[in-house]
Amino acid sequence: MGPIGVFDSGMGGLTVLRELRRRLPAEDLLYFGDTARVPYGTKGERTVRAFARQDASFLVNRGAKLVVVACNTASAFAIDDLQRELPVPVLGVIDPGVRTALQRTRGGRIGVIATRGTVESGRYQQQLSAAVGPQRVLARACPLFVPLAEEGMVDHPITRLVAWEYLAPLRDAGVDTLILGCTHYPLLKRIIGEFMGPETVLVDSAEALAEAASLTLAEAGLQRDPGGPPGRMEFYLSDIPWMFQEAGARFLGHPIDSVQTVNVNEADWDGHLDLAGKDVS
Amino acid sequence: MGPIGVFDSGMGGLTVLRELRRRLPAEDLLYFGDTARVPYGTKGERTVRAFARQDASFLVNRGAKLVVVACNTASAFAIDDLQRELPVPVLGVIDPGVRTALQRTRGGRIGVIATRGTVESGRYQQQLSAAVGPQRVLARACPLFVPLAEEGMVDHPITRLVAWEYLAPLRDAGVDTLILGCTHYPLLKRIIGEFMGPETVLVDSAEALAEAASLTLAEAGLQRDPGGPPGRMEFYLSDIPWMFQEAGARFLGHPIDSVQTVNVNEADWDGHLDLAGKDVS
Repeated sequence: MGPIGVFDSGMGGLTVLRELRRRLPAEDLLYFGDTARVPYGTKGERTVRAFARQDASFLVNRGAKLVVVACNTASAFAIDDLQRELPVPVLGVIDPGVRTALQRTRGGRIGVIATRGTVESGRYQQQLSAAVGPQRVLARACPLFVPLAEEGMVDHPITRLVAWEYLAPLRDAGVDTLILGCTHYPLLKRIIGEFMGPETVLVDSAEALAEAASLTLAEAGLQRDPGGPPGRMEFYLSDIPWMFQEAGARFLGHPIDSVQTVNVNEADWDGHLDLAGKDVS
Repeated sequence: MGPIGVFDSGMGGLTVLRELRRRLPAEDLLYFGDTARVPYGTKGERTVRAFARQDASFLVNRGAKLVVVACNTASAFAIDDLQRELPVPVLGVIDPGVRTALQRTRGGRIGVIATRGTVESGRYQQQLSAAVGPQRVLARACPLFVPLAEEGMVDHPITRLVAWEYLAPLRDAGVDTLILGCTHYPLLKRIIGEFMGPETVLVDSAEALAEAASLTLAEAGLQRDPGGPPGRMEFYLSDIPWMFQEAGARFLGHPIDSVQTVNVNEADWDGHLDLAGKDVS
């Protein structure tokens, strides 16, 4: 009856944590953000797989009963490794996102926006194409969305211009359902929605993932009594970045009280990460 | 008579390598880009210092006779550590940049644009203020410039808009000399120059650093015969990022023929980094 462990390349996965909190309020939640090595979305497959293994092992070593890969890029490259290797169930954000998109599309024209790594992996495209055919699937890398979201420029003319540049081909192709294939993108939902228009369904994998987590726990008999006392949340980061308080509150929806740092430099490469044990306000 | 070792958080330091090549064509050059953990500019001091130690040790272990810290953020946080600990001379990009700015300013109003980490370190501001007084120094973090340069958006309306947003306070303050305090920024020189106007001197630390490297080698009697055969260049990266060929050519000015990967995951924490020995194209 340990916590649900959630990892991400950085702070973006807090949007997933927020949904888990809402859907499963009695569960303890353990978050690891690899802020020392963020981002993953620009990096190669081998690197992302190695990082994801370490991140997941850290959560398992701290007692996680379920591991949630909140990062789309890590889900794209490492979910098979993790599901094969870890002794607990592992959920990524891609399958729930695909499932939701297929449920909600009307015309069967589905777009995906994501990091370059996630797009290059072809993971979303393969799964969607199997259902609706490859001509009806359009994926596009939006590399500037991550820094714009991290800078908090969620309602800024520059972000509108960037959105226009990235999203025009998707709108022109008549996409009716758009998967936000990166945990940072829900912060830009308003601007993306404005540009795509009210007809386009935006799929935020976090909601579908929280649903999947609930089902997985129930099936495995690992769910806490939903009427029980509220669960605890613990935060671990491999670096305390500049402005992390602001960024944390933006992604999580409320301030983070305290966080502990994990020293990835002292990790041994079976994936165990030593805690520096430093408490940061 | 080993190589000059140059490290950076990623590919941006290739702008420094290019200047070293031009100034010291007979020297062998050894480059390490920590592309697996890039960027450094958003990360905290402790993390940057730990990374910089590892990066520099890698170069020394491969025989570098001089270590050049091409990354401004690493220079800001780690130059004192490295100069104290390493058995070879160490040059950062900040001191040469400051020196050049002080030589070239007419009115003594000096601006610095850099990553958040470099600005927070206060390193440029302290050194400049000591010479011209704190009221005449203005530093500004420009976090979106790095992803814009990496995306190759060096002549793009979005970049113009971002430049306007970041640089207006510097122009309004009457800055006559502007230090480009990040190795990525020389790629945006044209747009920055257009906005600041022809009266403003733009200081690219790379040129001043290559000059300082030449002097340091000459003083230590480590300089190769400038009339000798052209030196070799070797490239090591901790990750092969998406589009690294394009990015490499952009920063270096010509294509990179081959690169070897360094597996930071197999590093021992005395700073020795094992080579994966994988040759990429």
